[in-house]
Amino acid sequence: MDVDPSGGWDRSSRAAMALAVAASEDVRGTTSPNPPVGCVVLDAAGEVVGVGATQPPGGPHAEVMALRAAGERARGGTAFVTLEPCAHHGRTPPCTEALISAGVAAVVHAVVDPNPRAAGGADVLRAAGVRVESGLLAREVERGPLRAWLHYARTGQPHVTWKYAATLDGRSAAADGTSKWISSAESRAEVHRVRRQVDAIVAGLGTVLADDPQLTARTPEGVLADRQPLRVVVGEGDLPAGARVLDDSAETLHLRTRDVDEVLAALAGRGVVDVLLEGGPRLAGAFLAAGRVHRVLAYLAPTLLGAGPAALADAGITTIADALRLVVEDVTTSGGDVRISAVPAAPPGSR
Amino acid sequence: MDVDPSGGWDRSSRAAMALAVAASEDVRGTTSPNPPVGCVVLDAAGEVVGVGATQPPGGPHAEVMALRAAGERARGGTAFVTLEPCAHHGRTPPCTEALISAGVAAVVHAVVDPNPRAAGGADVLRAAGVRVESGLLAREVERGPLRAWLHYARTGQPHVTWKYAATLDGRSAAADGTSKWISSAESRAEVHRVRRQVDAIVAGLGTVLADDPQLTARTPEGVLADRQPLRVVVGEGDLPAGARVLDDSAETLHLRTRDVDEVLAALAGRGVVDVLLEGGPRLAGAFLAAGRVHRVLAYLAPTLLGAGPAALADAGITTIADALRLVVEDVTTSGGDVRISAVPAAPPGSR
Repeated sequence: MDVDPSGGWDRSSRAAMALAVAASEDVRGTTSPNPPVGCVVLDAAGEVVGVGATQPPGGPHAEVMALRAAGERARGGTAFVTLEPCAHHGRTPPCTEALISAGVAAVVHAVVDPNPRAAGGADVLRAAGVRVESGLLAREVERGPLRAWLHYARTGQPHVTWKYAATLDGRSAAADGTSKWISSAESRAEVHRVRRQVDAIVAGLGTVLADDPQLTARTPEGVLADRQPLRVVVGEGDLPAGARVLDDSAETLHLRTRDVDEVLAALAGRGVVDVLLEGGPRLAGAFLAAGRVHRVLAYLAPTLLGAGPAALADAGITTIADALRLVVEDVTTSGGDVRISAVPAAPPGSR
Repeated sequence: MDVDPSGGWDRSSRAAMALAVAASEDVRGTTSPNPPVGCVVLDAAGEVVGVGATQPPGGPHAEVMALRAAGERARGGTAFVTLEPCAHHGRTPPCTEALISAGVAAVVHAVVDPNPRAAGGADVLRAAGVRVESGLLAREVERGPLRAWLHYARTGQPHVTWKYAATLDGRSAAADGTSKWISSAESRAEVHRVRRQVDAIVAGLGTVLADDPQLTARTPEGVLADRQPLRVVVGEGDLPAGARVLDDSAETLHLRTRDVDEVLAALAGRGVVDVLLEGGPRLAGAFLAAGRVHRVLAYLAPTLLGAGPAALADAGITTIADALRLVVEDVTTSGGDVRISAVPAAPPGSR
């Protein structure tokens, strides 16, 4: 076997799990409050015989979809799943049952299920004589398709990514308010792909009044994507009747509050797990001050302005010792921009 | 020969030029207005027999230093020089003469001399039967040790690098003025290494009054480096007698003007080629507005403040169409910080 010295997994296992991750990416934004999981079944000879991903709530889980595609060829084969298979009866029967009755010889999952109600799947499988391994591509899955859901499973709260675009000197617009376009076409296209994968986009009423954004996910050709996140406007005033955010391209929720935890409770109550916070600066400040930002996604354009509104305001910090410290996970370039993904150095809530 | 498919140069040639680059890095900050050049001589068998770098003005050039070290073993060998050897009589005899009389068979230089007075070295060498090649590690040298001097040779003006440290949201200090430390220890150590290699550090009088910086180059242990750049304070008011910038650790020049071109003319008159502009925000804005920043070196700390002074102010830009556009050359991380090197998208002066 072609063993990868870094992980100890052979190449075909890594390829199978990578395919499962890709399958799960495809269904992000359609499964909440269930996790977007991917599953790939290899037959006994190591050939891909089934690929599946979680269907919308009430529908089959990823394992069942992949096993259906594999049929009898699953017998003696291996299932690669991005999350430990569930062992409980929810709206669907346990996936462990489906795997056992399909006769797979082994199950490899990336991430252990932190949910006490669903966990224990590995033990159930082992008791039935199935070989179980865990941890393959765990980091990719934890930081990727299951990031938001894992947070939700551990805390009961939606996961919030604050996304902003700014100049190298931290401005989100010029002094006269113009901001089209600070970030590159590539960065804007990536943000649309991210929007398509989240459950909700949150913006402040001030931003909606000032910029009249549509808050939709679009393809690079400008066409509405095949699915749209919930649009959420936060603020106590009224939305003007003609606001683009009220058009029929997606559902819109107006929360007449500035209280961050009220916002998150309302979203959790609607099954929202993955939230993209898109500003403005004061709403972002309120979420940060409340310790309710779990990831920062910054698109820094290689431009300088020297004047204009800051990307972030009113985060309740007045002295350097209280600065909100992050850890950079990833730095890449995106059409000339510098894209930084960072997470709080201390988990929010522990501050 | 072990040919590198990317560049067409063999490995030993690349290694020799890399050694010449390292030798030139060692003398940065000591040669202006002459270029900090490095030279390595290989004997006919390909062994390193001499390494040299430009001595302070009036002293021998890199080629002469390396040839002296090589002695008779240079005959039939190859000289690797970071800059095309000069062919003119300045304060020292032409290096082409030294190379020819030493009997080297070949000369490889990284960068062609843009200076019409000194150029033509390659032709002189060829006329004497020396094989000449050019372009090896050209990009490294152009962006590295000869960046400032090449700008100076082409324009007659000092090269200005604006260096700043800021939070991800563009703040150079918190609302109460505290800023120790925004950037990481690694980033601060790197800035001290950069300071040691430049001819002058420029800061605004406001920054000197507010922060009382010493503006020296120090080792990681906090000891004064073996050489110090000229300290330049720009602004019309008086320097307080006890200012640290007036201590005896380095020379200090106080220019009672805010006119950027007056500052640069005064520095050029003192033989300053390589300038590190360290703020504050309004002085940086004035340099940028005048098109006199040739490189931006940003240390972005993974922290957020949401309030406090911006890293850049008053650059004369009011609308997004006039934003100063840069091209990112290089993004790295430095002790957790994101370090970005960028240059103007259009050459300053062409705007």
